[in-house]
Amino acid sequence: MALILLNHMGNEENEYIKEQVQVNNPNLDTMEEDILYHFSLSTKTHNLPEMFGDIKFVCVGGSANRMKAFAQFIHQELKLPGNPGDVKDICEGTDRYCMYKVGPVLSISHGMGVPSISIMLHELIKLLHHAQCRDVVLFRLGTSGGVGLAPGTVVITEKAVDYSFRPQFEQVVLGKVITRNTELDEGVANELLQCSSELQTFPTVIGNTMCTHDFYEGQGRLDGALCSFSQEEKLEYLRKAYEAGVRNIEMESTVFAAMCRVCGLKGAVVCVTLLNRFEGDQITSSHDVLVEYQQRPQILVAHFIKKRLGYII
Amino acid sequence: MALILLNHMGNEENEYIKEQVQVNNPNLDTMEEDILYHFSLSTKTHNLPEMFGDIKFVCVGGSANRMKAFAQFIHQELKLPGNPGDVKDICEGTDRYCMYKVGPVLSISHGMGVPSISIMLHELIKLLHHAQCRDVVLFRLGTSGGVGLAPGTVVITEKAVDYSFRPQFEQVVLGKVITRNTELDEGVANELLQCSSELQTFPTVIGNTMCTHDFYEGQGRLDGALCSFSQEEKLEYLRKAYEAGVRNIEMESTVFAAMCRVCGLKGAVVCVTLLNRFEGDQITSSHDVLVEYQQRPQILVAHFIKKRLGYII
Repeated sequence: MALILLNHMGNEENEYIKEQVQVNNPNLDTMEEDILYHFSLSTKTHNLPEMFGDIKFVCVGGSANRMKAFAQFIHQELKLPGNPGDVKDICEGTDRYCMYKVGPVLSISHGMGVPSISIMLHELIKLLHHAQCRDVVLFRLGTSGGVGLAPGTVVITEKAVDYSFRPQFEQVVLGKVITRNTELDEGVANELLQCSSELQTFPTVIGNTMCTHDFYEGQGRLDGALCSFSQEEKLEYLRKAYEAGVRNIEMESTVFAAMCRVCGLKGAVVCVTLLNRFEGDQITSSHDVLVEYQQRPQILVAHFIKKRLGYII
Repeated sequence: MALILLNHMGNEENEYIKEQVQVNNPNLDTMEEDILYHFSLSTKTHNLPEMFGDIKFVCVGGSANRMKAFAQFIHQELKLPGNPGDVKDICEGTDRYCMYKVGPVLSISHGMGVPSISIMLHELIKLLHHAQCRDVVLFRLGTSGGVGLAPGTVVITEKAVDYSFRPQFEQVVLGKVITRNTELDEGVANELLQCSSELQTFPTVIGNTMCTHDFYEGQGRLDGALCSFSQEEKLEYLRKAYEAGVRNIEMESTVFAAMCRVCGLKGAVVCVTLLNRFEGDQITSSHDVLVEYQQRPQILVAHFIKKRLGYII
């Protein structure tokens, strides 16, 4: 445990003691059983504190294959006993998400888009609460379209913004729209940027990330089944986004940031850009290049985790 | 081909001749290559007319395992040559979606939520366009929460409605919100209801389907990581939904209906209810019961397809 405190000196240590993962729902404590349906786990059939109580880092990403690869990668990086190839999907009872545990690291897939990651986050936060986890840092490792950046650049999100570049997430509750703040943890973002300068293997920036609810019309792509705007109108929208500090576009960051804040979790969004949207819409890089790009957020977050665990001083 | 015309007599036959799947994007015809990135298919590397030109029915659903099971089921039902167990994932180059072709039927998974199905629909409609498909009917086969219905009831959607019970879908295009109509094809819905009365194996109704952007707060669940309302407020919202004709709640129908209409595709949404939301939030039925419920939309749509193909007169 002491190793985990490396970055928690002075007053922060007291803060650490208190930082149990918080749910904001008084009903949960009175429920006899809580079925985490989309994980195929339950408080009655699984001993969640025993299974997950030591989790300190949760890494989530859209693709099931990529999150399995990350679990195997972090297994190697942490030099844990056993064969990385043997990591086992904890959610094998369902195909909605996959989940791997490697020492203090949990790796989970979340599918594409805000609704899909939102279901996963509700059940993840309940899982961490039931397991009495403390001092957890949550990372989204993703892919994105770059705005004025060379393909392969890694963007650490400062603020997740909506289609109007506002740092907010609109949540419907019983038919009423409420607004939640989407600023992410500044300390974790700066620590990640520091990791990147130590690694010196790929370009990394801190910037705003625009979260949209589709891949085509909402992101101004000219190549969807529907398109009602011109190339010039597309470029004007991207220029406005750039001026508002947007450096990449993806589809999950606002609800991720909003839920982290509401539940008192430190969270970071780390996405690689697969193309520069000023130059096109289609993802034309070769499979091998795309695979290498997708490893970059994993390498960065692995370095962060190793530093926090004292593997790298 | 003649068999497919069974339900297209008189004037409808002329209509049928014209019904090539329409994209609404003039740019597509001038592109040298169209990469359907999330399917791992492309107009340059795949002969789409040869692979997909004979498709007449497209069935989509959230879960990859379920859509594989449906492909195997329809293979048996249509008595096609070969082993149903040998169906092969056409999108094996990616884990975003899976896709199976069984005679004139395409079975595709779409993940959870509007953004996830929206990406799939853009690429599916482009695929059908490139493959020069004609007279295609599109079905969403899903699961849902029931509103005032016994669990296991199948709901055929009349209108897909939003959180305020309006039959519309809000789409952001270059930062501006536009509204699209979400009424589904009345003829196909009635034909499906007729199929159900022929089968007489499970209760089926036509009703409105509410589409939300999350599973917990947006659907009035009391068991999420976040909950700020009372049981009574939840029930009041569900009662209002019921009065507005809502019989089930899921997470994809509005964009499905909107895109079908805009692209001139006949579409239907057929979802089974896994619970009655007036009675609870958690899905507590046994695995076997849930599996049987999930087969119901498949059985209904298979019956529809067999009638259209002349297997059942």
